[in-house]
Amino acid sequence: MQHYSVAVIPGDGIGPEVMQEGLKVLEAIENIHGGLRFACDQFDWNCNYYLRHGRMMPENGLNILKDYDVILLGSIGAKEVPDHISVWELILPIRRAFQQYVNLRPIKLLRGLESPLRNKGYEDLDFVVVRENTEGEYSNMGGRLHEGTPYELAVQNNVFTRHGIERVVKYAYSLAKRRRKKRVTAATKSNGINHSMPFWDEIVKEIATEHPEIETNVYHIDALSAYFITKPEEFDVVVASNLFGDILTDLGAAIGGGLGLAPSGNINPERIYPSMFEPIHGSAPDIAGKGIANPIAQIWSISLMLEHLQQMEMSQLILQGIEEVLCEGKVRTADLGGNASTIEMGEEITKRILREH
Amino acid sequence: MQHYSVAVIPGDGIGPEVMQEGLKVLEAIENIHGGLRFACDQFDWNCNYYLRHGRMMPENGLNILKDYDVILLGSIGAKEVPDHISVWELILPIRRAFQQYVNLRPIKLLRGLESPLRNKGYEDLDFVVVRENTEGEYSNMGGRLHEGTPYELAVQNNVFTRHGIERVVKYAYSLAKRRRKKRVTAATKSNGINHSMPFWDEIVKEIATEHPEIETNVYHIDALSAYFITKPEEFDVVVASNLFGDILTDLGAAIGGGLGLAPSGNINPERIYPSMFEPIHGSAPDIAGKGIANPIAQIWSISLMLEHLQQMEMSQLILQGIEEVLCEGKVRTADLGGNASTIEMGEEITKRILREH
Ligand SMILES: CC(C)[C@H](C(=O)O)[C@@H](O)C(=O)O
Ligand SMILES: CC(C)[C@H](C(=O)O)[C@@H](O)C(=O)O
Repeated sequence: MQHYSVAVIPGDGIGPEVMQEGLKVLEAIENIHGGLRFACDQFDWNCNYYLRHGRMMPENGLNILKDYDVILLGSIGAKEVPDHISVWELILPIRRAFQQYVNLRPIKLLRGLESPLRNKGYEDLDFVVVRENTEGEYSNMGGRLHEGTPYELAVQNNVFTRHGIERVVKYAYSLAKRRRKKRVTAATKSNGINHSMPFWDEIVKEIATEHPEIETNVYHIDALSAYFITKPEEFDVVVASNLFGDILTDLGAAIGGGLGLAPSGNINPERIYPSMFEPIHGSAPDIAGKGIANPIAQIWSISLMLEHLQQMEMSQLILQGIEEVLCEGKVRTADLGGNASTIEMGEEITKRILREH
Repeated sequence: MQHYSVAVIPGDGIGPEVMQEGLKVLEAIENIHGGLRFACDQFDWNCNYYLRHGRMMPENGLNILKDYDVILLGSIGAKEVPDHISVWELILPIRRAFQQYVNLRPIKLLRGLESPLRNKGYEDLDFVVVRENTEGEYSNMGGRLHEGTPYELAVQNNVFTRHGIERVVKYAYSLAKRRRKKRVTAATKSNGINHSMPFWDEIVKEIATEHPEIETNVYHIDALSAYFITKPEEFDVVVASNLFGDILTDLGAAIGGGLGLAPSGNINPERIYPSMFEPIHGSAPDIAGKGIANPIAQIWSISLMLEHLQQMEMSQLILQGIEEVLCEGKVRTADLGGNASTIEMGEEITKRILREH
């Protein structure tokens, strides 16, 4: 019997709604496999918690999480709490404290769905973005001067370290080796951003040289964003800084059929600390509480989690279940043009997974 | 008789090829209007010039340009010269020295073309991005430490000033007032970038409050990029920082039918200094010299230039000429699925403009 401990943070808005469906799927996996057990502990750390306690999680929150095998997150953010608090006191500290320096985001059009791109099918949309997840543009360093005067200014430091760039770029290459196209595309902007990005390019070049069997392309982020639209079939592994990866993956989610679908893994490749799995989408306050959110991003994130736990077969089973439901097309949430509820969608996928076996 | 002096910098790669067609159109406009004269002086400032002289333009280059009414640029960049030199010694100094703090970029699907977005037609794709063009993420401030060691790091400072943000956001609102939808969408990332972007948001909010007749939406850049794909019809005037505007406009060009089409104006709204008009696309070394580049972005940039010079009718005439050629569909360059040369395309548009009158 293989036991895993899972820290579950449903979060805000639609987070708890989609998490509920995710956990049903996880239970289904236990039933099917027989030899897997997930011990899930729920934590109510979110914006409500903040309003009650003045902090997003307890002082020893990271310490509590540290001992879990993995973390499952729903989504964080509410109107009453500024984003830069909810994010900077929960998501980002977890990503950093646990050295989840790889944010792994598959961009993949699932079978049964149509891309908003006219001429692209699921053969064209199947790559993965490796986003740097701990430094760069989200550095927390900087401040303001001359506040309240016409001369007021803000400085934000982007901080890129050799260590930080090397480890994520190396990860991208190791991933590309295991994939079919054997191609790494690096996002840069060294023509406009003239200190950090040339540094990034140099390190990419060094690591590319060590991997002659992998094809390397380097594009400026502006052009690369356009290529996501015009030639997504070119990509295999895309590696990008924290901000660029953030932008590219929302864009990727859009061309891949929608933000309600896209999953992500915040990975600590050394497995010293827990990795965290969460939908790319936010807490969507506009539809929260209505029971109509699409739970697929959350469920797919659980598939990624199982992949991380090297339960490949179970991971695939979930993805298959999702694709079957989408192909059948009867049960769909509003974002996919249907009128199924979050629960109906979650249960349909769960049923598929259970029958599948 | 109205005289305008135009500094023409064809630049590198396909720049001179598309510029040649642009200048034919400008001549056609002189013929049609009768009362307009453009005195064009050409400057060979480009990467070749750099290889010969060790600089992208003469020491007094900016001083020379200063006295022109407008500047027309082709594109800059060649393999032999690092981008951060060609750009930082030509385009960026011009944008800054002449306080061209608005980079105006229409995102518009021209009639006769199809968007790569499945369900979007030309009624859905018609907005404008106002990009901050002088500060922010392209600050040139920063550097490296511990070079050549494993501890090496680079810091890049994003510098945002109240003055710099205010003027571009005000411009966006003044533009929105003159448009149909009366809507400003501001790009931010204040959830992840916690000094500069909250500052940006505050100023947007202040200025929004002064314009209750304009609807204001603020989206994080990741979500906004996705919305360019999923709901472009929502946008009217999008205002963004230097980097975000750069990314959004390449993305906008892609959904608007291609990078070969999209124009831009680097505007000094106070008209103290010359404004500069250039295609969004780069020098495209891969197709340079083949005579197959699409000249439309350059020609459309001239239309923008005429708009800036308050020659509205002539500006419209050019856009009509372009759209007629596209609607007819016989003469198209390779990027639009045809096999016309740059010259054929340029001449076809010129003919249309001349007959149009
Ligand atoms: C050449 C480059 C620095 C430039 C920019 O990013 O400003 C270009 O991409 C543009 O958009 O005009
Ligand atoms: C909440 C926000 C800071 C976060 C990010 O930008 O990292 C989110 O957009 C994401 O992509 O996970």
